[in-house]
Amino acid sequence: MGIVKCHQSISLDGYSAGPDQSLENPLGVDGEGLHEWAFELDSWRREHGMDGGVTNASSAVVEETTANVGAGVMGRNMFGGGRGPWAAAPSWEGWWGANPPFHVPVFVLTHHGRAPLEMEGGTTFHFVTDGLVPAVARAREAAGDRDVVIHGGADTVRQTLRAGLLDEIWIHVAPRILGCGERLLDDVGGARFELIRAVDAPGVTHMKYRVLR
Amino acid sequence: MGIVKCHQSISLDGYSAGPDQSLENPLGVDGEGLHEWAFELDSWRREHGMDGGVTNASSAVVEETTANVGAGVMGRNMFGGGRGPWAAAPSWEGWWGANPPFHVPVFVLTHHGRAPLEMEGGTTFHFVTDGLVPAVARAREAAGDRDVVIHGGADTVRQTLRAGLLDEIWIHVAPRILGCGERLLDDVGGARFELIRAVDAPGVTHMKYRVLR
Repeated sequence: MGIVKCHQSISLDGYSAGPDQSLENPLGVDGEGLHEWAFELDSWRREHGMDGGVTNASSAVVEETTANVGAGVMGRNMFGGGRGPWAAAPSWEGWWGANPPFHVPVFVLTHHGRAPLEMEGGTTFHFVTDGLVPAVARAREAAGDRDVVIHGGADTVRQTLRAGLLDEIWIHVAPRILGCGERLLDDVGGARFELIRAVDAPGVTHMKYRVLR
Repeated sequence: MGIVKCHQSISLDGYSAGPDQSLENPLGVDGEGLHEWAFELDSWRREHGMDGGVTNASSAVVEETTANVGAGVMGRNMFGGGRGPWAAAPSWEGWWGANPPFHVPVFVLTHHGRAPLEMEGGTTFHFVTDGLVPAVARAREAAGDRDVVIHGGADTVRQTLRAGLLDEIWIHVAPRILGCGERLLDDVGGARFELIRAVDAPGVTHMKYRVLR
């Protein structure tokens, strides 16, 4: 059986997104800078259908986070299309174009039901209206022997921690101060972490933790 | 000329001390756990006058932070003895016993003047009542070609960052969640950081940053 895992970039002061998230700026003010270390990587670019890029100490980390993934879970805010009923955004198919970089079933947490959305390349978005625990259960079933990735956003990661459903997390610390926004590890109940290892890479520090029960 | 440097342990959620700091519990509830990685090191134990301990990847980090130090600066809360005039704690000589582990002049920020306190082993506490900038200037002068360490607490580190006086900082991330307390990197103005390197060690991740002007 696979595990439930997660990888999130945060600022030095703990934010995984900046303030004022919007359709134009989904990661909030300055939030995209948290991911700058990834954009130049060949492994990240390949996963997102682009050529070129460099190989460095981050490459193996990205490959590990994306290996052996059988399904994903994400919050409605990360899937996008605004809040509220889909009638307001009936044709919204996510931020990632016709061929999203997931290539497996992705379960989207929402209060508003919608038929599954089959994309190119193996990604199908399923819209789950009965909460996180059933969404993770469905993702585990779809993943079979492979892992489930909790894609985010921060609120979904926190819910997963509070529910005791997360097994491992990679935290990528970017050398930036956001000063405000949404913090990844606020209000995570009694979650306890054990450091597995850290990786020193250009412009980012990767820390891998086991979540203890 | 030396630099102004700092090393601070923080929790995964960014706190450098837990809630309810007191004379009995100066690092606040659960705050001492942030330093657990250091207590077992031979270099830390030697510095604090104890034998034994282990050598691991943290040892070189501790040696670097304590090397070439000519003077220190700390806040009144870190020096201790409660708040307010010294009349209430006339014999308070810090937490560290007769022979504190500094062995250089240490400038204590306080609103309440007091004669310098000469301890064994080369540590002299000077009490500075005109603020952080003069305290750092006096420490730089005392340090000569060597470095000034900003010992803490978090508020003093933040003041130093806001004043643009810090050159380098080691952040030691302990795999703990405190959930509340005092955050090291809240309200640090426009401080910008450049990652120098990270060190993977047992039970802690060390990250060294240059502070950009």
